[in-house]
Amino acid sequence: MSVVVLTGGVGGAKLVLGLTHVVLPETIAAIVNTGDDFRHIGLPVSPDLDTLLYTLSGKSNQAQGWGREGESWAFMEAVRSLGGPGWFALGDGDLALHVLRGHALAQGETLSRITARFAAAWGVAVRILPMTDDRVATIVETDQGALEFQDYFVARRCEPAARGVRFTGADAAHPAPGVIEAIADEGTRAILIAPSNPFLSVDPILAVPGIADALRAAAAPVVAVSPIVGGAAVKGPTAKMMDELGIPVTPAAVAVHYGELIDAMLVDERDRDAAPAIDHAFADTLMVTLEDRIRVARAALDLAARLAGR
Amino acid sequence: MSVVVLTGGVGGAKLVLGLTHVVLPETIAAIVNTGDDFRHIGLPVSPDLDTLLYTLSGKSNQAQGWGREGESWAFMEAVRSLGGPGWFALGDGDLALHVLRGHALAQGETLSRITARFAAAWGVAVRILPMTDDRVATIVETDQGALEFQDYFVARRCEPAARGVRFTGADAAHPAPGVIEAIADEGTRAILIAPSNPFLSVDPILAVPGIADALRAAAAPVVAVSPIVGGAAVKGPTAKMMDELGIPVTPAAVAVHYGELIDAMLVDERDRDAAPAIDHAFADTLMVTLEDRIRVARAALDLAARLAGR
Repeated sequence: MSVVVLTGGVGGAKLVLGLTHVVLPETIAAIVNTGDDFRHIGLPVSPDLDTLLYTLSGKSNQAQGWGREGESWAFMEAVRSLGGPGWFALGDGDLALHVLRGHALAQGETLSRITARFAAAWGVAVRILPMTDDRVATIVETDQGALEFQDYFVARRCEPAARGVRFTGADAAHPAPGVIEAIADEGTRAILIAPSNPFLSVDPILAVPGIADALRAAAAPVVAVSPIVGGAAVKGPTAKMMDELGIPVTPAAVAVHYGELIDAMLVDERDRDAAPAIDHAFADTLMVTLEDRIRVARAALDLAARLAGR
Repeated sequence: MSVVVLTGGVGGAKLVLGLTHVVLPETIAAIVNTGDDFRHIGLPVSPDLDTLLYTLSGKSNQAQGWGREGESWAFMEAVRSLGGPGWFALGDGDLALHVLRGHALAQGETLSRITARFAAAWGVAVRILPMTDDRVATIVETDQGALEFQDYFVARRCEPAARGVRFTGADAAHPAPGVIEAIADEGTRAILIAPSNPFLSVDPILAVPGIADALRAAAAPVVAVSPIVGGAAVKGPTAKMMDELGIPVTPAAVAVHYGELIDAMLVDERDRDAAPAIDHAFADTLMVTLEDRIRVARAALDLAARLAGR
């Protein structure tokens, strides 16, 4: 019996880490957003895949929320001294992923194979699957024009008001090998949607043709973990974006956004008065400690098991 | 009045640094070997250009003889942990040159423009000119077959016996902008050949069509600084290669190798009994301290001035 998780970076990685303490890691497949991927100084950066790799191999910087623990910055200092761009920080150790990935991509290896190779090298048993091996780019439509994701998210710190989000290249993209198979597999007992940003982290995955259909057709229950905790987002621009898009900052509104793709939602106990119309359960979903992560993972799996009548 | 130096990496950079204390740095043009340049994990490395940049900007690791002072190695550690190649070490700060250069080359900027931009950013007034913007690769023919330069030099530590050296791509290469002009300029008062390895560092420069002809036609005297000190090479495989190629390890033999391209040679005072037939002068040419570098630079310029009758 296996578990599938659709996930973005930081928040989703916490849930996946929690899951590895509840079920065997090798029975988990994480389908990861690559809409944030971009080239920086020619290097291919995959922020969400990398966050999964760092988190699951015990290398993540938990205080910072991104990158490696104990990272050094000699590269960035030298880049700046040479007049290179300083707005996106690449750590010295972190560079290894991007340089090796760039070299492998140039030689024709797919992103999914490269990611599997990196995971194996670092002893990560969870299957980390990019949503696609094709190029999909998240574009945020804002009051300052259409912005590429990293421009919106890092360079402008999510300050422009969002008007919408689109995913260029998604129409022509194919799910990476293993993605549809994991969702459709008869041995899959739960499909979780991580408490990642619905618009920026989960929607790009759902925009890859075939993935939403596979969710609808899946035998396993689809359970979203609400990204809202006490009427706010734990981290990042989720609540701000919902406001700007005219959507109430509630679990109920997130459930409406996912619509018939999900069967149930795990809702934070602080949001009892904003619970969705669909099947749901309550838990303390704030994930600060490892114990929190395990508790949320267990609660999501319990809800899925109830739906499946197990 | 300006000075031109044909140079490889470490030894030549010492001479150029010495020159900057004798004449105005902006009157010096260094024509630099790029035959050692190669791609490593997809990044373009230019060892000799980089050594000039580091040496002239005060960033070089003098104990080590290559790379940056105070370098850190988090990138290499991460590369090795991911199963990447560890035989060629790229320091964290050093990576900035290679990543920015790779990005700029991919966007169509020439190596010579990129190098000039880096030099300006680091306040280097010496004009650092790659011998060519085209791809020339030094291949060492050995008893273990034909080896690319870095394979011979770094991976195999010059252990295979050399049988010859060739420069692929040289026939079709063009001197970089400024190279021929610097040699032919009427304001050039001396053309120096640095005490770099004649076969691996100077010959590739001479193999670029037009450069040897320009030396022959130059009004300025051409003075080679002998790479031999006391019957041995100061560093690197020069002496070992000369042995293997059946050439005596003497200044006289180096002068014969350069033939009519040079007008005179600055010979180490320890090699008085192996001086060349051509015009020459003696000096202590061992460059350990900055004072040594200045002394050698001055002696080479003095010899050129004598030839020019100044």
